[in-house]
Amino acid sequence: MASADSNTLPRAPGDGDGVVISVDAMGGDRGPATVVAGMAESAGKNPGIRFIVHGPQAELERLIARRGDLAGRCDIRDAAGVVTMDDKPSQVLRKGEGTSMWSTLESVRQGEATAAVSCGNTGALMALSMLRLRKLPGVNRPAIACLWPSRNPQGFNVMLDVGADIRADAQDLLTYALMGASYARNGFGLERPRVGLLNVGTEEHKGRPELKQAHELIPTTAQAANFDYVGFVEGGDLPSARVDVIVTDGFTGNVALKTGEGTAKLVGELLKEAFGKSVMSKFAALLAMGSLKRLQKRIDPRRINGGVFLGLNGTVVKSHGSADATGVSAAIKLAFRLAQSGFQDRLAARVAQSVAAAGQINGSKESEAS
Amino acid sequence: MASADSNTLPRAPGDGDGVVISVDAMGGDRGPATVVAGMAESAGKNPGIRFIVHGPQAELERLIARRGDLAGRCDIRDAAGVVTMDDKPSQVLRKGEGTSMWSTLESVRQGEATAAVSCGNTGALMALSMLRLRKLPGVNRPAIACLWPSRNPQGFNVMLDVGADIRADAQDLLTYALMGASYARNGFGLERPRVGLLNVGTEEHKGRPELKQAHELIPTTAQAANFDYVGFVEGGDLPSARVDVIVTDGFTGNVALKTGEGTAKLVGELLKEAFGKSVMSKFAALLAMGSLKRLQKRIDPRRINGGVFLGLNGTVVKSHGSADATGVSAAIKLAFRLAQSGFQDRLAARVAQSVAAAGQINGSKESEAS
Repeated sequence: MASADSNTLPRAPGDGDGVVISVDAMGGDRGPATVVAGMAESAGKNPGIRFIVHGPQAELERLIARRGDLAGRCDIRDAAGVVTMDDKPSQVLRKGEGTSMWSTLESVRQGEATAAVSCGNTGALMALSMLRLRKLPGVNRPAIACLWPSRNPQGFNVMLDVGADIRADAQDLLTYALMGASYARNGFGLERPRVGLLNVGTEEHKGRPELKQAHELIPTTAQAANFDYVGFVEGGDLPSARVDVIVTDGFTGNVALKTGEGTAKLVGELLKEAFGKSVMSKFAALLAMGSLKRLQKRIDPRRINGGVFLGLNGTVVKSHGSADATGVSAAIKLAFRLAQSGFQDRLAARVAQSVAAAGQINGSKESEAS
Repeated sequence: MASADSNTLPRAPGDGDGVVISVDAMGGDRGPATVVAGMAESAGKNPGIRFIVHGPQAELERLIARRGDLAGRCDIRDAAGVVTMDDKPSQVLRKGEGTSMWSTLESVRQGEATAAVSCGNTGALMALSMLRLRKLPGVNRPAIACLWPSRNPQGFNVMLDVGADIRADAQDLLTYALMGASYARNGFGLERPRVGLLNVGTEEHKGRPELKQAHELIPTTAQAANFDYVGFVEGGDLPSARVDVIVTDGFTGNVALKTGEGTAKLVGELLKEAFGKSVMSKFAALLAMGSLKRLQKRIDPRRINGGVFLGLNGTVVKSHGSADATGVSAAIKLAFRLAQSGFQDRLAARVAQSVAAAGQINGSKESEAS
């Protein structure tokens, strides 16, 4: 697992050049060749990127040798075990040592890499991340943040949690607001992100008790944490320009994410059918090719591939299991961008500050009461 | 409110010809002219339909007089009050008497009409429906069922609850399964609807406790209630062909519904932009007009307009507040179809049967235990 004799050892970030990303070559639906192709695509575009890659050494050596862009920029860590999509998180926690996923996280834990990327089993990756990287002080439930195509200038919104935990109380939702705002600021350069809380209506009297509590809590930290709280938002606001970060529990977020993906896919397929119907419409599709390509690019899930695990001691980016090379490259780019921005330290500081502030508020309330 | 001197009094259903639909002319975003236009559209297509219309008498008389299709088929009930979109349900419960919405439900309560249609405030309509029509015996939480474009032969799936109640326990979810299956059978002629339970994964170990309980409960009644239980489904299955009825709580369902609508709208707008970009793509759009129109019709929310309130002593169809005449006509057609099929009695019988069966099971368990 730890044989590091091939290629050059990547330098740690801060060495002057290069950010090191730890990549799990296994566990995706398309196998390691696709992951290595994605790494090459990403390396070609970002000269400052270096990799530690985890998986079966011989196979990875062969795949990497074919890619000129990767020459001298990869360190391979041999790992024979693979976490499959069917493995239960509880099994992986017990028997996961020796897998490429475990090894990928280990590089972040040891400080050799700044961020990890995996196409593998989401539940297992989150469980292992919590076990090995541990939660940030002050974070009760980590979250998975995804990107959502929107009418905003940046082209998408951030939504969290989309599936780390099916529950979230008011305090968790507040933490999600902080983490989501920090992610939007560091990942996409939004100085003062606008945060909304997902509900079934925008009126104050609507929603579950924990939502009403969070609706009271979140504004109290918005000023200090440098974001704007826009209040309740609805499902229809997910692609809207009135919000940058959408906060919800992992059950609702996961259903919304998959519903949106499913709807976009259905419309896309029906559109393709419509254009294939007659000679005239086929000709029309040919004429409109440029416009349709632009549209496709705008809503292409591969371009915004990458769920980010927030609230851990380390940045972990989960790529879609079915991602192709372009998708993997997008996930790596996201990890690279977050690593470059010093996101991890800023996020940790933000959460710590908020915990301290909450402690002060509680403390002063107690002393008032006493 | 009860002046019935204009036009002919519609005969009650079963009189030989005609099904009577009670229509709230007020409360929609586009006013009574649009509702009356929708009634006329619907009357033109369905000779067997008759109406009781509720709203300001003089205005309605004027609007109806203009529509030849409605001659002699409408009874007007004068109601000066209007429930607005901003009225809180609790206010409407206290002060709603004298409004067109109240009067609309009254006609169903009195047995003069078989089903009610309103474009008004959803929360108020549900609250008033529960107050005036009362819940069916055996139903704890009524639900709102909506239609969702899908790859199924019927062109859509049924989802419930999409917003009647933000909570649902396992027993409620079972009731939703029964009611949804009954709706799909009577509304769309599906002999043995396939019912799925919305969750964050299809594996048995996933999801909230009430979902796991419902997952055990629902199959026990599927055989007797004449539907197939396909197990857990995900957000991506909402438009899929592997299920006809999707059961969820009103919070999740509402977010999913609005997310799907929002996504479809975004894609549609981006598509329009794409086709407007260049002379060539404008020309292409012209050529593909027929195909695009067909696609638009397929996913047109107006065609599948109408949330049905299930679990009450009477059928209530909620039209979109922003519905145009075509949308109103679709909602009326849905009400007409359900009324014709004897849906209300069948649904009540189905729920009663299930309650009795559950009682027997509990009873026999108790006697086994004793």
